[in-house]
Amino acid sequence: MFSHSPPRLMTSPRQLKLGAFMRPVSIHTGAWRYPGAYRDANFNFAHLKRFAQLLEHAKFDAFFMADHLALLNMPREALKRSHTATSFEPFTLLSALSQATERLGLVATASTTFDEPFHIARRFASLDHLSNGRAGWNIVTTSNPDAALNFGLEEHLDHAERYARAREFYDVVTGLWDSWADDAFVRDASSGIYFDPARLHTLDHRGKYLTVRGPLHIARPVQGWPVIVQAGASEAGRQLAAETAEVVFTAQSSLADGQAFYSDVKGRMDRLGRARDHLKILPGAFVVVGETDAEAHAIRAHLDSLVHLDSAIASLSIALGTDASAFELDQPLPDVPETNGSKSGRERAIQLARREGLTVRQLALRLGGYSGLAFVGSVRTIADQMQAWLETEGSDGFNVMFPWLPGGLEDFVHKVVPELQRRGIFRKDYEGTTLREHLGLPRPGNRHFPTP
Amino acid sequence: MFSHSPPRLMTSPRQLKLGAFMRPVSIHTGAWRYPGAYRDANFNFAHLKRFAQLLEHAKFDAFFMADHLALLNMPREALKRSHTATSFEPFTLLSALSQATERLGLVATASTTFDEPFHIARRFASLDHLSNGRAGWNIVTTSNPDAALNFGLEEHLDHAERYARAREFYDVVTGLWDSWADDAFVRDASSGIYFDPARLHTLDHRGKYLTVRGPLHIARPVQGWPVIVQAGASEAGRQLAAETAEVVFTAQSSLADGQAFYSDVKGRMDRLGRARDHLKILPGAFVVVGETDAEAHAIRAHLDSLVHLDSAIASLSIALGTDASAFELDQPLPDVPETNGSKSGRERAIQLARREGLTVRQLALRLGGYSGLAFVGSVRTIADQMQAWLETEGSDGFNVMFPWLPGGLEDFVHKVVPELQRRGIFRKDYEGTTLREHLGLPRPGNRHFPTP
Repeated sequence: MFSHSPPRLMTSPRQLKLGAFMRPVSIHTGAWRYPGAYRDANFNFAHLKRFAQLLEHAKFDAFFMADHLALLNMPREALKRSHTATSFEPFTLLSALSQATERLGLVATASTTFDEPFHIARRFASLDHLSNGRAGWNIVTTSNPDAALNFGLEEHLDHAERYARAREFYDVVTGLWDSWADDAFVRDASSGIYFDPARLHTLDHRGKYLTVRGPLHIARPVQGWPVIVQAGASEAGRQLAAETAEVVFTAQSSLADGQAFYSDVKGRMDRLGRARDHLKILPGAFVVVGETDAEAHAIRAHLDSLVHLDSAIASLSIALGTDASAFELDQPLPDVPETNGSKSGRERAIQLARREGLTVRQLALRLGGYSGLAFVGSVRTIADQMQAWLETEGSDGFNVMFPWLPGGLEDFVHKVVPELQRRGIFRKDYEGTTLREHLGLPRPGNRHFPTP
Repeated sequence: MFSHSPPRLMTSPRQLKLGAFMRPVSIHTGAWRYPGAYRDANFNFAHLKRFAQLLEHAKFDAFFMADHLALLNMPREALKRSHTATSFEPFTLLSALSQATERLGLVATASTTFDEPFHIARRFASLDHLSNGRAGWNIVTTSNPDAALNFGLEEHLDHAERYARAREFYDVVTGLWDSWADDAFVRDASSGIYFDPARLHTLDHRGKYLTVRGPLHIARPVQGWPVIVQAGASEAGRQLAAETAEVVFTAQSSLADGQAFYSDVKGRMDRLGRARDHLKILPGAFVVVGETDAEAHAIRAHLDSLVHLDSAIASLSIALGTDASAFELDQPLPDVPETNGSKSGRERAIQLARREGLTVRQLALRLGGYSGLAFVGSVRTIADQMQAWLETEGSDGFNVMFPWLPGGLEDFVHKVVPELQRRGIFRKDYEGTTLREHLGLPRPGNRHFPTP
């Protein structure tokens, strides 16, 4: 299905790919209270525009917009402390950002659980045209039961059904993107022919979950297909990624875990006959920069101290899929039954508690701030760690999360990026103009109109 | 439900409200073949940006983006001659345009037939925040049976069901926009309270067609609600407009028809206790400007000559909801049975043929170009007609359609608008910053959090 682009040998040795995984005020629940933080970035586009322009200045591959389809399912008394309650909708935000930037990739999170593939295919195609080939689709399935209630459903699909529907949804969306051959639009004024009808394909999909006729009434995206991004660490998620993803956004908490995941997913690609380079594995990494390691740890401690225990317990409840408010705070985590929520979130929380011997309170505060992979230290410490992941097949780069905005982002852009560039493990300028070119991914051939 | 804003008496006498009803290449099927036309404007955002900036320069109220949810249901051999086959998706396009303009209203067409109210409410709220209060929602129901097939439905809803669903959809969307009180976000860093949970309302709608819990996870729009725009000339459409619309986009073909419609809809508002000024009636008007009336008619004739007969017959078939390709071309229109398609389109075509005694060929060519209300003439002729409509309660302004782009738009902006301004019937500068302010509409109160 993928056509091969000419080899890109300009970048040797291997370089990091860097996305910025964004919530406008930061992923960290206490961030809005940090001195100097932009508390109103949820609805202040000027701030978002500045962040995107700084990321482009630093030659980041992409701006990843996180998303939810409901208010977070925390008790209101906990939620009231969180800036993550509310923000811009990704398609509208990234379309606006497409006009504030020229090269930065724009990755929107869009769920396959509560939307129509025709709408999703059309919006991403439109974003790709508006941005001249910079769109990416972070395909997610939605496990939040509160989201189902916003779409007229009492029960959400179970985990296996969500993934099966996601796979079919992907087939339909990519099939719709291929509705028009790249050369369909001839626009010959003298004969009066605007397009060649032989270069237009009607999908006529009739599957288990979806029935969609098509064709899409928008030209094939500039990139052929927007870049396909996925997360999900479960067995089903890994297999779907190996088959279809071009970027995997993972949540590994140690280099050893990262290497195991990397080896597993790239091994699945080998068995499927897909080139390993055609999928970039980018763990999320929360990066706190200080003049010294000690200063960086002090910044993180300050930030964590701004999380309220109510929010922390609520975060723990979400991660476990179980109400944690009745747990004994200063005891070890009790046994927690498996639920229909996100498997990877629950597993990660339990492992973190066991690995570090955390009490419920300690675990909750960690989760309430940010509990995943973190690089906390001086510029040198951070660059050493990123380089180690890159050079030992822990990852192909990172999805960076900033502890607070704008300061945490500015520190990364102005301090860490120049050091990565100095070491030759991050680009000094963009190699091309599209997100696919930034990531070294081939432009997919058109399944209905293969090139000879 | 509507709170009263202070009276705006700066503009006396009454002035026209002007929208630009846009398809990127023009509404006219032959336009892309016109010498100098931007044939590729469907996918060339730079052209769209220039159009929007010209409209803002001329102080237009809004840019209205037309839309469809499927490829037009014409035979491919006719459709291949039409640039209207394909274009940008409205939310993404208008979000991008929000960054290329500062005052121009941005009205997106969004159907209530094949989308979820939670998504629609959220995207319009986001567009309204991104544009600082310039969003409008052109609520349409989708009658194209081909669209149903793109969303897994074999049968489309009948006319009455579409309107009943639309009314409930409107209630849900506006209810979701009111999820948060305007003052909900306190962002008090010292106490750690980001929002006041007492100022957040869960809609919990359970209706005939829709079940939506809410709340919306985006702050109340800048305008309270984006401006509500409707079309539809049927009995159900008029009543829905009188109850809920703030702008009505109509298709009247003569001043007498316009006056009758105006009187009918404003009369319904009187009976509902709504202030007449809180709804602006804007007929679509196709405006062809020449140095003289004769030159303008020659331009139109040239444009119409660029429509192919195949496309013309296809347009006629769409209007009638019946395949017209078997009709005798040079005979009068035969009797055509009523179908489940758009009632207003069918009625308009039949009336036009009867009024002007057109043959099938003549009717088809007119419909294939543009058959609705047209002002064709010198600047003076056009300004006289617009003024007559305004001053005799034919309309509150117009949704202007340009015969070809960019020339037809430039002529209107550089020639007609200055004449309207000279006569005192169009603004010389914006009175405010939001679309509601441009249109003189009150900001709706919040139904869940009324102001005392």
